[in-house]
Amino acid sequence: MLMQNYARVNLGFKKGKGAVLWDFDDKDYIDFGSGIGVCSLGHSHKKLAKTISKQAHTLLHTSNIYQIKPQEKLSDKMCELLREPYYVFFANSGAEANECAIKLARKYGNSFKEKKYEIFSLANSFHGRTIATLKLTGQEKFHPNDFAPYPEAFKFFGSIDEIIANLSDKTAAVMVELVQGEGGINPLDKADIQKLAKVLKEKKILFITDEVQCGVYRTGEFVTSQIYGVSPDIITFAKGLGGGVAMGACASKEDIFKFGDHGSTFGGNFLATTAGICVLDELEKLKVDGKLDETISEFEAMLDSLVERFPNLFVKRVGLGLMQGLVLKNPENLGKIFTKAMENRVLILKSGKDTLRFLPPLNITKKEIKKGYKRLLKTLKDKELA
Amino acid sequence: MLMQNYARVNLGFKKGKGAVLWDFDDKDYIDFGSGIGVCSLGHSHKKLAKTISKQAHTLLHTSNIYQIKPQEKLSDKMCELLREPYYVFFANSGAEANECAIKLARKYGNSFKEKKYEIFSLANSFHGRTIATLKLTGQEKFHPNDFAPYPEAFKFFGSIDEIIANLSDKTAAVMVELVQGEGGINPLDKADIQKLAKVLKEKKILFITDEVQCGVYRTGEFVTSQIYGVSPDIITFAKGLGGGVAMGACASKEDIFKFGDHGSTFGGNFLATTAGICVLDELEKLKVDGKLDETISEFEAMLDSLVERFPNLFVKRVGLGLMQGLVLKNPENLGKIFTKAMENRVLILKSGKDTLRFLPPLNITKKEIKKGYKRLLKTLKDKELA
Ligand SMILES: Cc1ncc(COP(=O)(O)O)c(C=O)c1O
Ligand SMILES: Cc1ncc(COP(=O)(O)O)c(C=O)c1O
Repeated sequence: MLMQNYARVNLGFKKGKGAVLWDFDDKDYIDFGSGIGVCSLGHSHKKLAKTISKQAHTLLHTSNIYQIKPQEKLSDKMCELLREPYYVFFANSGAEANECAIKLARKYGNSFKEKKYEIFSLANSFHGRTIATLKLTGQEKFHPNDFAPYPEAFKFFGSIDEIIANLSDKTAAVMVELVQGEGGINPLDKADIQKLAKVLKEKKILFITDEVQCGVYRTGEFVTSQIYGVSPDIITFAKGLGGGVAMGACASKEDIFKFGDHGSTFGGNFLATTAGICVLDELEKLKVDGKLDETISEFEAMLDSLVERFPNLFVKRVGLGLMQGLVLKNPENLGKIFTKAMENRVLILKSGKDTLRFLPPLNITKKEIKKGYKRLLKTLKDKELA
Repeated sequence: MLMQNYARVNLGFKKGKGAVLWDFDDKDYIDFGSGIGVCSLGHSHKKLAKTISKQAHTLLHTSNIYQIKPQEKLSDKMCELLREPYYVFFANSGAEANECAIKLARKYGNSFKEKKYEIFSLANSFHGRTIATLKLTGQEKFHPNDFAPYPEAFKFFGSIDEIIANLSDKTAAVMVELVQGEGGINPLDKADIQKLAKVLKEKKILFITDEVQCGVYRTGEFVTSQIYGVSPDIITFAKGLGGGVAMGACASKEDIFKFGDHGSTFGGNFLATTAGICVLDELEKLKVDGKLDETISEFEAMLDSLVERFPNLFVKRVGLGLMQGLVLKNPENLGKIFTKAMENRVLILKSGKDTLRFLPPLNITKKEIKKGYKRLLKTLKDKELA
């Protein structure tokens, strides 16, 4: 039996292709959620499937005691796309990528005469489900007393200005999602972020962006910090990086760890990193060809049209690239629309209390968008929505 | 570039088959480490490779919002092999499996009027690399001040008797590896463990076994607790479960979490859980056929012969099943033998300060064992060993 920790809906899939999933009755669903941003190349992508198959027939895993060529290659590819040198550690999830960032920040802070150990985050953020990343998450409901005691010195604040006002000699790092994904789709203000980056640099405090959800071309560039014109000290990745294979990564400008400070049995193994290389090659092509930007425009136009056609339901469209939200006038419609959309065979996600979330595959086709749009139209015309 | 957190040797591999790995010069190596116990079916196992390939061409991942059939099937298979009902959560690593166990224990403890929140572990244990699992690890060097502050209420003790003596109204759980893997290969005493299990039951304290390294048939049964004749409240898994695909699992007798208490983006996805089903099916066959027990006897005999032939080097053989160690008289030989064995093309591991560790694939053949033995003989005859 499975634990009851997820509120699962009564629907499951047997196969997928592109942005389409099929249930056990062979009914097709348009997937505007891609496994919460994981299936960046859609489902059963030919090249990715071939890469994984070949690797499974060759070598899945060796220990990190040994050299792992695709791990080196993937880290080099990431640095090339980041256009700056970073040191990369490979983990198995977003939470693990952030645990690595926390340890880096703490060790960095410990090197000062006046030790720095506080790590700040922002209200409505989400950083993971481990004890430490839960505490770092800027939403009280994620770190209830049930799991206490938590580690001290994680603090969250309501705004970037409040974060800046509370920085002290004890602050080692500030972690933010440039576009928040779980607590509502919320792209942070560009001027705020540039100010924060500048202040942190002056104060020798690390600037960490959690790009687990908004990274890997999700918002239109390899990392969202490129759109914001900032160069973080540490960037964390997961979700879309493996295209469906579990993996996370933490990239740091400074090589802070020494031998033995951190590790992972599986992290960066042959299977995950060969998949990662394939995903980045394919996504880079999409970007360079101009196709990604085209898709972003199409998807935004589709959502704008929904806002225009249903002014009774929606406040506005929010988001960046293919990380989009529609803010609802009435939060009660959130669960209803999610369920009705599923009944009409288009898969969308919820975010925060009042936002429909859209994280389609980054290679979704015009045809698939159109099909999903039609199904959404049908959904939103439902008379039960108020 | 990669972070310098691992002390990597100057050797890497391009392919593997069974218990053999090939380097870039096409030289073959006998693998007595299987990626630290991960490649339980050896390398490029035909059925596993086919299963992974098929799944990659069908569906790698959907969100845990939806039903995931192979996840259900794998949890059922695990319960069948555990011969008792458990509720299973799927994670992506051993550390994540243990984070889940910690959260379950804390939530369980929080349900008492006099809240229990302490979690005890044993000296020389290893439970992972996240902030919380580091603190739970019973080795000071793993939780240096560099990463502080840590969560409170994790305590470790030198012996099972000391653990029992220190149990209080505040103790929620005790976590042990029945065979310790990182701090020397150390099978705990059976009578001690049965006593501990009994006392914990009486005191309503959860008994957690970390079977990340010693589970999944590694010691001869599906879980080592079956060998010890105890039935833990919570069991954690990782390493061998996916046969090279990153995955972890936490099985609990009580379904302690409610919706939203825990989660993972990737955990239990199609790729990992179809791999897990294939691994368990194959390993169960090995066990039922009597082949696993045969291999264990052969491997033990091989190691015993080494101890006999090199009384100058070895104190004794330690371990259970295919989780074995050779304790060295002179700890200085540990690094030397590891390196020289590698030069002689047989891969072994280190554990603690003075133990050579052996974690071969569970389906290693007689021929492969023999080949590795010959290479070890050559290694141990080296005059530089003192
Ligand atoms: C911004 C962000 N950080 C971290 C995480 C945690 O990632 P994972 O579920 O892979 O541990 C998530 C997951 O949704 C996320 O959106
Ligand atoms: C007993 C035990 N628990 C937990 C872990 C952590 O597992 P992972 O490296 O997959 O996080 C290990 C890893 O060696 C282990 O041996």
